[in-house]
Amino acid sequence: MTQKQTRCHKNKMIQLCAHMQEKICHYLSISNQTPLIKDQWRRPSGGGGLTCIIPEGKLLEKGGVNTSTIYGELQPQMIDTLKLKDLPKKSLEMFACGISLVLHPLSPFIPTVHANYRFFEIYQNKKPLQWWFGGGADLTPYYLFEEDVQHFHTVHKEVCDEYDPQFYPLFKKACDAYFYLPHRKEHRGVGGIFFLKQSHKDQSFLFQWVRDCLGSFLSAYTPIVEKRKHMKASSHHRQWQLLRRGRYVEFNLLYDVGTRFGLRSEGRVESILMTLPKNVIWEYDHKVKKNTWEEKLMKVLKKPRQWAL
Amino acid sequence: MTQKQTRCHKNKMIQLCAHMQEKICHYLSISNQTPLIKDQWRRPSGGGGLTCIIPEGKLLEKGGVNTSTIYGELQPQMIDTLKLKDLPKKSLEMFACGISLVLHPLSPFIPTVHANYRFFEIYQNKKPLQWWFGGGADLTPYYLFEEDVQHFHTVHKEVCDEYDPQFYPLFKKACDAYFYLPHRKEHRGVGGIFFLKQSHKDQSFLFQWVRDCLGSFLSAYTPIVEKRKHMKASSHHRQWQLLRRGRYVEFNLLYDVGTRFGLRSEGRVESILMTLPKNVIWEYDHKVKKNTWEEKLMKVLKKPRQWAL
Repeated sequence: MTQKQTRCHKNKMIQLCAHMQEKICHYLSISNQTPLIKDQWRRPSGGGGLTCIIPEGKLLEKGGVNTSTIYGELQPQMIDTLKLKDLPKKSLEMFACGISLVLHPLSPFIPTVHANYRFFEIYQNKKPLQWWFGGGADLTPYYLFEEDVQHFHTVHKEVCDEYDPQFYPLFKKACDAYFYLPHRKEHRGVGGIFFLKQSHKDQSFLFQWVRDCLGSFLSAYTPIVEKRKHMKASSHHRQWQLLRRGRYVEFNLLYDVGTRFGLRSEGRVESILMTLPKNVIWEYDHKVKKNTWEEKLMKVLKKPRQWAL
Repeated sequence: MTQKQTRCHKNKMIQLCAHMQEKICHYLSISNQTPLIKDQWRRPSGGGGLTCIIPEGKLLEKGGVNTSTIYGELQPQMIDTLKLKDLPKKSLEMFACGISLVLHPLSPFIPTVHANYRFFEIYQNKKPLQWWFGGGADLTPYYLFEEDVQHFHTVHKEVCDEYDPQFYPLFKKACDAYFYLPHRKEHRGVGGIFFLKQSHKDQSFLFQWVRDCLGSFLSAYTPIVEKRKHMKASSHHRQWQLLRRGRYVEFNLLYDVGTRFGLRSEGRVESILMTLPKNVIWEYDHKVKKNTWEEKLMKVLKKPRQWAL
């Protein structure tokens, strides 16, 4: 692959992220019936981004869709966090662009959703040394509706299968492994797909696959929203949702590589921590009662299942 | 110092922690007008503890006072987290006992308080190799009452001065440095004292100093509670308190060595995370208005002051 072609995918990825940010935000502003907060920001050491925040409204308690394009010197702490190997030590630069979104709905019956797709490149003296795509999408329900989880997984499986039948099983497993809280011995949610550093195939092949994964986001998530948005929740359901949101915060601050990378690489704090829910509760030693709807969720968080057949 | 004397301080420290836990919990159960939740627990790989939780009541939204005595194999991740150096590689064992408490009052005018005192020892083939005391106490106000902060610092300074006039200035500075959120460029609170690995003096001298620091906890904190508990708070004050609690969570999960050590060393999760507040809010890009009471707090969190003269 020549340098010209590489640059070409960089720009295509930037355009794709911007286009999908607009499309997703358009859907959210209509469903939520609130204007969005848009913040264009610059990174002092190179690059910047556009953060779109969806404030509390009809659908969401809080949501954010962020795109960013950052570049400049590859700092030692980045090499560390990204677990980069086999790199020369001098004159290293990096480029990263991507989209990342987290939506925390008001209703405890609509799951929180997270998606994040990105392209990375490392250079020495302007010459590309390494590149890769990373990303995925995953669901964090508060109450389990099996058909919703099946739908979300099936949409992602179908996109993956078009490119490589090994993708979905591999990245479904990686998703379960990544979104895991060892101190709780439970997974953050019911997964989806997750992949780190994909570069073993042709760049244009991988770009198209990432484009289709991201492109399927709305068709994977919005049918769940439409199905559940009229269900009435009690204060009991709400309380459970707020408690589970505490686990979401624990994962993001204790383990999430993106959060830790962002905070270490002088990323924009508000855009990184927009992933945190608005209202959260920590209660001492909360125990789920036997044979309840809450216990049904905990069972799949303790032991991930196959959702797409 | 002989081994017998060392064992003697181990037991004295265990007794001191148990006695102070009882004393502090007695005060809290009366002020809060709620029964305490007491959980005696065992650590599978050695030791255990007693966790006392103060549920939401007249004074506190959530509070916990925990004592623990843990021992057994010194695991590699502990060596890492505790930044231990100059140790042989084989047959290492550890002992740690201590008390740790965090109180999150309901009123935004009463600061959150944290205190933690502990004794550590490392052995090879049952022979002590290293020992140290660690600990401190610090205040996290939501609204600044200068006289309250002065009182808290002065009590601790007076105790320290009785032992060594260098202690307070040194450990006040260390406290400001430790309770710092680099991504926010702000300190968690207004500090107090904080010390890591004190072993450069006689063990019985250091034990007595730690005993007096811990012994002064109630006289450092309760006058503040009594002064502020009748002040009426508005929903504006409450909202600010919940937002600031988010910063408390960020510090504890992103940076606190005790939390990270505990979660990595198979500590009891609920006793470690009892430090997290009950109700928390994250709001996107919250900005403090000029010339407000909130801004007054932010100024001292951005730039620590001298409080005890």
